[in-house]
Amino acid sequence: MTVTETRVKSVYFFGGNQTEGKANMRNTIGGKGANLAEMSLLEIPVPPGFTIETKECARFYENNKSISEETRHQIDLNIQKVEEMQGKKFGDNDNPLLMSVRSGARVSMPGMMDTILNLGLNDDAVEGLSKQSNSPRFAWDSYRRFIQMFCNVVLGVSHSGFEDILENKKQEKGYTLDTDLTVEDLKDIVNQYKSFVSSKGKSFPQDPKEQLLMSIGAVFQSWEADRAKVYRRINGIPHHWGTAVNVQAMVFGNLGEDSGTGVAFTRNPSTGENVFYGEYLVNAQGEDVVAGIRTPEPIKKLDQQMPAIYSELVDIYKKLENHFKDMQDLEFTIENKKLYILQTRVGKRTAASAIKIAVDMVDENLIDKREAVLRVKPDQINQLLHPTIDKSFKPNVLAKGLPASPGAAVGKIVLTADKAEEMKAKNEQVILVRQETSPEDIGGMHAAEGILTAKGGMTSHAAVVARGMGKCCIAGCSDINILKGKVEINGEEFNEGDFITLNGTSGEVIKGQAPLSKPELTGDYQKIMQWSDEFRKINVRTNAETIQEVKTALEFGAEGIGLCRTEHMFFDETRIKLVRQMILSESTQDRESVLDKLFTPQKNDFKEIFQAMDGLPITIRLLDPPLHEFLPHDNESISDIAQTQGISVEKVNKTIENLKELNPMLGHRGCRLGITYPEIYKMQVKAIIESAVEVQKEGKTVLPEIMVPLISGDKEFKNIKKLIQETAQNILTKHQIKLEYQIGTMIEIPRAALLADKIAEEAEFFSFGTNDLTQMVYGLSRDDSGAFLPEYVEKEVFPEDPFQVLDQDGVGELMKIAFNKGKQTNPNLKVGICGEHGGEPSSVEFCVKIGFDYVSCSPFRVPIARLAAAHQAIKG
Amino acid sequence: MTVTETRVKSVYFFGGNQTEGKANMRNTIGGKGANLAEMSLLEIPVPPGFTIETKECARFYENNKSISEETRHQIDLNIQKVEEMQGKKFGDNDNPLLMSVRSGARVSMPGMMDTILNLGLNDDAVEGLSKQSNSPRFAWDSYRRFIQMFCNVVLGVSHSGFEDILENKKQEKGYTLDTDLTVEDLKDIVNQYKSFVSSKGKSFPQDPKEQLLMSIGAVFQSWEADRAKVYRRINGIPHHWGTAVNVQAMVFGNLGEDSGTGVAFTRNPSTGENVFYGEYLVNAQGEDVVAGIRTPEPIKKLDQQMPAIYSELVDIYKKLENHFKDMQDLEFTIENKKLYILQTRVGKRTAASAIKIAVDMVDENLIDKREAVLRVKPDQINQLLHPTIDKSFKPNVLAKGLPASPGAAVGKIVLTADKAEEMKAKNEQVILVRQETSPEDIGGMHAAEGILTAKGGMTSHAAVVARGMGKCCIAGCSDINILKGKVEINGEEFNEGDFITLNGTSGEVIKGQAPLSKPELTGDYQKIMQWSDEFRKINVRTNAETIQEVKTALEFGAEGIGLCRTEHMFFDETRIKLVRQMILSESTQDRESVLDKLFTPQKNDFKEIFQAMDGLPITIRLLDPPLHEFLPHDNESISDIAQTQGISVEKVNKTIENLKELNPMLGHRGCRLGITYPEIYKMQVKAIIESAVEVQKEGKTVLPEIMVPLISGDKEFKNIKKLIQETAQNILTKHQIKLEYQIGTMIEIPRAALLADKIAEEAEFFSFGTNDLTQMVYGLSRDDSGAFLPEYVEKEVFPEDPFQVLDQDGVGELMKIAFNKGKQTNPNLKVGICGEHGGEPSSVEFCVKIGFDYVSCSPFRVPIARLAAAHQAIKG
Repeated sequence: MTVTETRVKSVYFFGGNQTEGKANMRNTIGGKGANLAEMSLLEIPVPPGFTIETKECARFYENNKSISEETRHQIDLNIQKVEEMQGKKFGDNDNPLLMSVRSGARVSMPGMMDTILNLGLNDDAVEGLSKQSNSPRFAWDSYRRFIQMFCNVVLGVSHSGFEDILENKKQEKGYTLDTDLTVEDLKDIVNQYKSFVSSKGKSFPQDPKEQLLMSIGAVFQSWEADRAKVYRRINGIPHHWGTAVNVQAMVFGNLGEDSGTGVAFTRNPSTGENVFYGEYLVNAQGEDVVAGIRTPEPIKKLDQQMPAIYSELVDIYKKLENHFKDMQDLEFTIENKKLYILQTRVGKRTAASAIKIAVDMVDENLIDKREAVLRVKPDQINQLLHPTIDKSFKPNVLAKGLPASPGAAVGKIVLTADKAEEMKAKNEQVILVRQETSPEDIGGMHAAEGILTAKGGMTSHAAVVARGMGKCCIAGCSDINILKGKVEINGEEFNEGDFITLNGTSGEVIKGQAPLSKPELTGDYQKIMQWSDEFRKINVRTNAETIQEVKTALEFGAEGIGLCRTEHMFFDETRIKLVRQMILSESTQDRESVLDKLFTPQKNDFKEIFQAMDGLPITIRLLDPPLHEFLPHDNESISDIAQTQGISVEKVNKTIENLKELNPMLGHRGCRLGITYPEIYKMQVKAIIESAVEVQKEGKTVLPEIMVPLISGDKEFKNIKKLIQETAQNILTKHQIKLEYQIGTMIEIPRAALLADKIAEEAEFFSFGTNDLTQMVYGLSRDDSGAFLPEYVEKEVFPEDPFQVLDQDGVGELMKIAFNKGKQTNPNLKVGICGEHGGEPSSVEFCVKIGFDYVSCSPFRVPIARLAAAHQAIKG
Repeated sequence: MTVTETRVKSVYFFGGNQTEGKANMRNTIGGKGANLAEMSLLEIPVPPGFTIETKECARFYENNKSISEETRHQIDLNIQKVEEMQGKKFGDNDNPLLMSVRSGARVSMPGMMDTILNLGLNDDAVEGLSKQSNSPRFAWDSYRRFIQMFCNVVLGVSHSGFEDILENKKQEKGYTLDTDLTVEDLKDIVNQYKSFVSSKGKSFPQDPKEQLLMSIGAVFQSWEADRAKVYRRINGIPHHWGTAVNVQAMVFGNLGEDSGTGVAFTRNPSTGENVFYGEYLVNAQGEDVVAGIRTPEPIKKLDQQMPAIYSELVDIYKKLENHFKDMQDLEFTIENKKLYILQTRVGKRTAASAIKIAVDMVDENLIDKREAVLRVKPDQINQLLHPTIDKSFKPNVLAKGLPASPGAAVGKIVLTADKAEEMKAKNEQVILVRQETSPEDIGGMHAAEGILTAKGGMTSHAAVVARGMGKCCIAGCSDINILKGKVEINGEEFNEGDFITLNGTSGEVIKGQAPLSKPELTGDYQKIMQWSDEFRKINVRTNAETIQEVKTALEFGAEGIGLCRTEHMFFDETRIKLVRQMILSESTQDRESVLDKLFTPQKNDFKEIFQAMDGLPITIRLLDPPLHEFLPHDNESISDIAQTQGISVEKVNKTIENLKELNPMLGHRGCRLGITYPEIYKMQVKAIIESAVEVQKEGKTVLPEIMVPLISGDKEFKNIKKLIQETAQNILTKHQIKLEYQIGTMIEIPRAALLADKIAEEAEFFSFGTNDLTQMVYGLSRDDSGAFLPEYVEKEVFPEDPFQVLDQDGVGELMKIAFNKGKQTNPNLKVGICGEHGGEPSSVEFCVKIGFDYVSCSPFRVPIARLAAAHQAIKG
């Protein structure tokens, strides 16, 4: 190939003083390449090499999967530079230059191509390496490994054939260990390897240039591998970014006792402690460390074995951390007493460690508070709030369900709520396993460590109640089959009393007892949260209806209640009977007299909450679910209620039948109940206002916000508003007292969003109910979406489950329309969100961007929301 | 009261040459007042009087229900004018002026106040009237009637007390008729009336001025009466319009044989024939005509009895019709040989008459074609297309259901589809009565004259199929209870074979055989439709899937098919078995092999339609409903399919159970099926393209538009579009043929509307599926809304049922957003509507206004849509 003028630079050299890249060129040359260049600039010893830019990846596909001529030319020039710098020559049989080839996207991305090592070895160079290393055994073993690696990764020949050849040789010779193989054995194996590859119709190339170009192509192709695509989807990495390729001179840690290799973190990635942390192996290559055949030594020991090297390494790690101002994860190799740093990158860390490092680095003046807050990922916080399964534990996963409520739990299987309570009383830890849960199971759910259901989705009764309790829950696990006194999990039978473990964060059902780590909220955590609050511009409220939930949420920093669902209060064992009686009432009068009995308990619910929330706003939603949700479905409860009511079982069944709906999600619920049965809403408003008056008289500040659900237009809202105002005014006049209360509405029906300007003329606040809004905007039932949503996400028709991450394009667009229309007619309108998305970081950031006043989420997500809101405020 | 300067004119005089109003002042002085003034200007003899303007109605309510001082003053001045003109005096006991008081809004509005006649009578004036009329009996009877009328209408005293007094007197005297009462009897009755009123704490005022002001107040109050409000709601009349009040000198038709009264139409209101049409009574007042005690004479006879008067009346009617250029409805009175016209207004007419009059008037050069088209109301057209119950018939209404498909039908009750076919074969007319219908009933539905179901809504199977067939249907009639071999309708028992009549336009179920009028489409009808088409700017297509429907729609002038639902084709008896087999398939391969069998029949469906529609576009929607809709629910069919498939009944039941959905409307349907089971859509596309190719080869023009249902975003659409294109291309390449086909989507999910810009980049057309869109925008299930929607409409929370009349504020707003976004990225985008609203006049007009290319509706609504579109085009 003739040398032509370079038109567009696509290859960047690194090493010594000829380095062409730098840290901020990550988009061009990928994270690994940028860091290698930056280290060279910092005069840190890095084996020289070059990076092919990320854009070449797209060109590769455009060029029918071939590297462009221009880039091939630049690769040639760079190889020459490396050869000169190392004083070695590619394919030389005296002093061969060997190279490694690695992928390197903008962000670190597992699932991409494995590293190819020892590239450049061929029938000549293996002799050169023998001389150079003074170890023919090492040279031939390296050659053997290279052929296997190259043929597998680049040519797609499966490992097993190579393994068979190796094993046969060992058996033939009676060896047990690979290290028993002699040079002659290895030479024979190499020959067998080559024939094997030929037999597969492939050919192992002897030309190092050809080896290199093929390897580079393999890296580009690995960008489109399934596992890489999946990773990108999960992590929101755009496909068009592409990967860079790093080609670097090999250094060997396995040339004797003066050589070695290791990995190290500049701080402890598990605890965050500011100590140099890592491990190494003398006379070994990186793969030996990974293989786990020999046990590595802790990094401290290197100080004794090679004090000069250790001291150099310490200087380097400090330099790197000071330079990058973050905890680094290093790979190093010592070749004949010379230290090389092969890689540095920001180290992955646990939530606890992230927090400690962030706070410590502020104390050390390395970063400021803003940066510290950004260093802790909102999603990570979850780890701190719930028990987790020890990372060291290898779980035997029996089945997978929906990760309905995070955390982990260990306990004995129980199949009824009663049994759960009974065993809890004996201090036994239990996991409640049910087809699905119902309000009657609340006691058992409280008693259990975790809940596992066969049916129901992320917002089923089990899921919602468990999240409120901060209790681990796996829902909709279709692989479980509940039988009499036992349960089949994925075909395996378990009896009541057998141990299982739930991982509510991943949805995994695990056999036996896994060791758990308890959550711990440190002072550093408090500091991060406090700093977050300094930056955060919107309020974070909670969705809570029991006093336990309210208290938990306050501890987690909730600044109000954004959603108090009154229907859950109706599910209490004694009240549910009254509620059913009310539903079966034949006249408004009968209904009113039952409602009178529900009034006092309802009032007491509110009093307790008002007292706890002194001075903080509380949004109370009037009754929302369709009445049939309160009716029993088992014969026993039906005949029970028939007896209580003094009516026939037939009549109860007929009422249940009449109330059934084809599409209950779009049925007779929310304010539609308030329009047709105003007496129900009147009782609730009376309970709210009476309790507020009583608590206010105790000297506390009560800020109730009465929220009307399922509004579809202004007239509906006006109708209910009038009812609320009249009911409230009667009470306030009677007590001759003033009370600040607001009336507002959920925005959860698309029509309400479209008519937001008219509704805002009457409403004092909007709260986006994004669960229902998502269902209606997508025309997608949460409960039924399981049949196809996973396939949709897999086929990338939907980027993710819109019930977990707010759909900003569609649902978000409608929210913006509603927000703008609402503010247009009522600039004082208070706006928040109370759907599940109120605790999901990207959704929280979206709400901040639009200009919401608050987000509201379940108690255990409050810290996540606080942090996410701070992130958005800092990032602007 | 002192006379002050007139500041704002609020009272307008009419009569002789002093008339102050005119015809175009309808908004100021109401329709009746404007016409009275106009008649005076035309020198038509009108008893003088004055009109209090409509604005006074609002002032009346602002002024705490009292007439403003200024208006009272102007009333005084106008009374003086009337007194002068008539030479009579209010309350005079020689020559008293008597007045009538009537309401008169901008548009004629039943439900408002009854007329008060003879106002001005008191203890003195009754003597004056005795002298004047020369009939004390007449005078005292008038006084008696006035007291009763005034006290009832103005003071709110119930009629029955007055009737009792009258009846007692007659019994006491042994009279049978009112006319037997003597003057003395009447004087006594008047006294008893007065005491009775006093006993109710009210007082009958003797002062004529007081009588007048109270009567005017009563007219204003009747504006807010419930029945007036209901009428306004139904007819879309704004509440703020208010009513005017007309006060007019009384004239008497009952002063002897030289007097009389009558009503007349300038043309026959029932047939439209251009003849003077009406009736009169000699020596009578208007109320005698209404009471029906004496039989009026046809108007022609007046020519013999009073030729001069008749000739004057003919001149007047011709003058009026020429002046108003429309058929008029007149009231006249002859007082002692003098003719007075009391009222003229545009006459109400039947659809047939409306058409004939409009066409005739164009021939007579009275109006132009535009005006003629506007004279026929789109809704009215329905009368012409379906049989109707004779207006003269008084039906015995047994129950009321939903008016699911218009028209009327008479037949013998049958309770099974088989029985219907069996009896039809014997030439018997039958009405099929079912709990609800299913695809198996199609044969019976065809055989029946009409269909009555106990369950299901306006879009249930029965309703949709019946509308397609143009067959009368009443759905969801909850008052029917189907028993073995008989049916209870509202408690009354009927056997199979008993006659009933259905009125599908009103939803009434009628006992026995009502006489029906057959529809007839005249040449005049064709003319009006042809003129409509000249003005109309958008196309009208039809929703049709059977060849019968297609042919009917073409006869009604459809210009294409806007919605061909392929699922109905699957319900055929032999095919449904294959469909079920497909659903029960365990692998894609099994499914494909069953689909292969469905391919040929499906292809033949399309061929037949393509042949019939030669040159017209046909939108074919790919499979839409969730699969469970095709599965059987009765044990017999289940065991049948289990046997055919060679699997267990248990397995079939399990599949049915698994496919069940909590909210099927938001479930696994539409393109979601196409994503998860691409083989189904592939078969359908293959059938469409193969049949199109075959018909094109026959020399016909085929314009298929393939429509993807339930799209929620651009990625989903791209996915299915690719499948369609690949499948189509394969076939076209194989045949080496070109075919013009388009690919587009339903817009029926709110998210699709919000992402319309992105979708339009890929789609060639949008068709708004406003049925589903309404459900999702409102969060309202059509099937479940029956529980509260009627109450919503009644309480005016919703102005009307949004499934019948498009909700322009919410759904319409979203349609505008989608239309604009779609056109923004694809200016060539073709846009239409295929929901039920496509045939509802106000919704059609809305679609024209936005700028749609077409509307599509069921075949029998095509003429309605054509006319409505023309109306919008003319009105601009």
